[in-house]
Amino acid sequence: MSRVYNFSAGPAALPEEVLRQAAEEMLDWNGAGCGVMEMSHRGRHFTAIAERAEADLRALMGVPDDYRVLFLQGGATQQFSQIPMNLLAGGSADYIVTGSWSQKALQTAQAIAPFVGGRVRCAGSTEAAGFRGLPRADELSLDPSAAYLHLCTNETIHGVEYLDEAGLPQGAVPLVADMSSHILSRPMDVRRYGMIYAGAQKNMGPSGLVVAIVRDDLLDRAWAGTPGVMRYRTMAEHASMLNTPPTYAIYIAGLVFQWIRRQGGLAAMAALNAAKAKLLYDFIDASGLYRNEVDPACRSRMNVPFLLADTRLEGDFLAGAEAAGLAQLKGHKSVGGMRASIYNAMPLAGVEALVAYMREFERTRG
Amino acid sequence: MSRVYNFSAGPAALPEEVLRQAAEEMLDWNGAGCGVMEMSHRGRHFTAIAERAEADLRALMGVPDDYRVLFLQGGATQQFSQIPMNLLAGGSADYIVTGSWSQKALQTAQAIAPFVGGRVRCAGSTEAAGFRGLPRADELSLDPSAAYLHLCTNETIHGVEYLDEAGLPQGAVPLVADMSSHILSRPMDVRRYGMIYAGAQKNMGPSGLVVAIVRDDLLDRAWAGTPGVMRYRTMAEHASMLNTPPTYAIYIAGLVFQWIRRQGGLAAMAALNAAKAKLLYDFIDASGLYRNEVDPACRSRMNVPFLLADTRLEGDFLAGAEAAGLAQLKGHKSVGGMRASIYNAMPLAGVEALVAYMREFERTRG
Repeated sequence: MSRVYNFSAGPAALPEEVLRQAAEEMLDWNGAGCGVMEMSHRGRHFTAIAERAEADLRALMGVPDDYRVLFLQGGATQQFSQIPMNLLAGGSADYIVTGSWSQKALQTAQAIAPFVGGRVRCAGSTEAAGFRGLPRADELSLDPSAAYLHLCTNETIHGVEYLDEAGLPQGAVPLVADMSSHILSRPMDVRRYGMIYAGAQKNMGPSGLVVAIVRDDLLDRAWAGTPGVMRYRTMAEHASMLNTPPTYAIYIAGLVFQWIRRQGGLAAMAALNAAKAKLLYDFIDASGLYRNEVDPACRSRMNVPFLLADTRLEGDFLAGAEAAGLAQLKGHKSVGGMRASIYNAMPLAGVEALVAYMREFERTRG
Repeated sequence: MSRVYNFSAGPAALPEEVLRQAAEEMLDWNGAGCGVMEMSHRGRHFTAIAERAEADLRALMGVPDDYRVLFLQGGATQQFSQIPMNLLAGGSADYIVTGSWSQKALQTAQAIAPFVGGRVRCAGSTEAAGFRGLPRADELSLDPSAAYLHLCTNETIHGVEYLDEAGLPQGAVPLVADMSSHILSRPMDVRRYGMIYAGAQKNMGPSGLVVAIVRDDLLDRAWAGTPGVMRYRTMAEHASMLNTPPTYAIYIAGLVFQWIRRQGGLAAMAALNAAKAKLLYDFIDASGLYRNEVDPACRSRMNVPFLLADTRLEGDFLAGAEAAGLAQLKGHKSVGGMRASIYNAMPLAGVEALVAYMREFERTRG
């Protein structure tokens, strides 16, 4: 067995320790006589697994008691519909668009709003400038009476991140943040948000699980037609088990939470992620072959898109990387170029290996 | 490691061969240098896994070319809403109620129908008779112009199964069948149905995956407000990858499909399952302590509920079973008593061990 450095944007690399433990426990979890995949979600073994996962996530993120942690299905994409179903309540919602994902969230909400009652506005977009930065405060047109303000705090495709929470819009309107691709990458102040949600398949575990953290006062605004399984209040009341949850994905996410705690928690993750990102961006900025076009004030520490000065070299670059054990560096098809996703599970050594490969490629081919 | 015989109704026992292979491939699938959980769903490795899973399922069930196989999220419970969203189309749908699950399907459809346009009728129910049988044809009030006719072909809690497809309602109205707890347990004639769906966590794999098999002519009836991720046409067009699918669950289900093919396919499963069920029901019927109250013409071959003549013995029965390595025999809380779920992965030896334990318990305590 030989493991590559896996730069996939998601589903993404997981810590080897987590995978080894999962493999060891596959046929028999903790003496239960069966694996986690085979357990009733209502039995004592899985109840313990789910409760520990929630407790560890709460401890890592400092989730206040008046927020519910929900383990849901359907990914962030299904949340793009569930959020207006649950929160629009006949009012108007604002969306800030800073890349492909916040744009999809807006478009999905616009499509469903007429059916669930309410309106959806674009409160600002950086699309005209190529999604290379965040909107300045004076570029936003915020509705002070909005039902909520949605934003994507890390754009996986365009590599744009809200690095400083002090720069988030302030006020009484609940912020709803898609943190799919940077949740648990550094401490976040949960109190700033009305709701946080994230697909698990970047920094938490397998795909098929989405975590939602919802403040209590937002649980009772759902459109009357919202199915119970899609209603935050109902899922909160049933501890995310109105129906069978994605048990194995919750178990793996729980192992990842434990792993992060062993690494020193989110402060340690933040330091490691800052060091990895600095290494890669500094190298790119000093290079003549590679470039990243995002405003340095909001370059993502998780997803680093970069272009080659000569696009004809892209195929050779990717083939050479693959041969050197540096996998999945191709950029998203909508933007082209390259992308290195360097989530929590990517060690510093992986970024060092990538930079060494990029340097050698530039020396010989640039 | 010591494995028990696991009679859980779901998530349920999986074949050991499948779990062993999954454990071996956890860190490195087929030389890819990473595990299946860590792969992009759009890369060549996972594409091959998903295509093989679909092909094997099609081969096992003989799915005709004009049916789409969809790998979805949210479980059968979410389908209870998605089905009226996708199929009601302003019309009226019939539901046959033969146990808890078809009743939940009806109630969920009734709740959403006014919002998506259309009506939902109960076309017959065996509730008054305690869900111990199937309705006779003359007990059904079927609407010949219904948009669809929904039924649950195996009731997991009440242990009632449509054993003979010839007894299904005939006619032009598309049958929509919840087969969650007996899909792949025997050959089914897919042509009889407009749509088949099943949560994976009984006979296919981990929870968090639901398989839907939908005839082409039913793809274009969706309510205009149906989100893309919940719309069968959209998911069919994107090969179930409009968004990130539950990749690991699809992989495990694929391994289960391969395992079933190695066992001889659905004919072999049917023979094994019939033998297991006969052994258990024959013993129960001959016993003075145990009883099953379901009409023998429709006793489930997958889920065998049974009662003890003296309910005060239940605690001792369960504790003794647990000590004997016979796990998760407690009945569903809504009906009490015991339940042995004996899905494909339960070997004949497991049922023999259960019968031996039951016989000894009756001899010493009955």
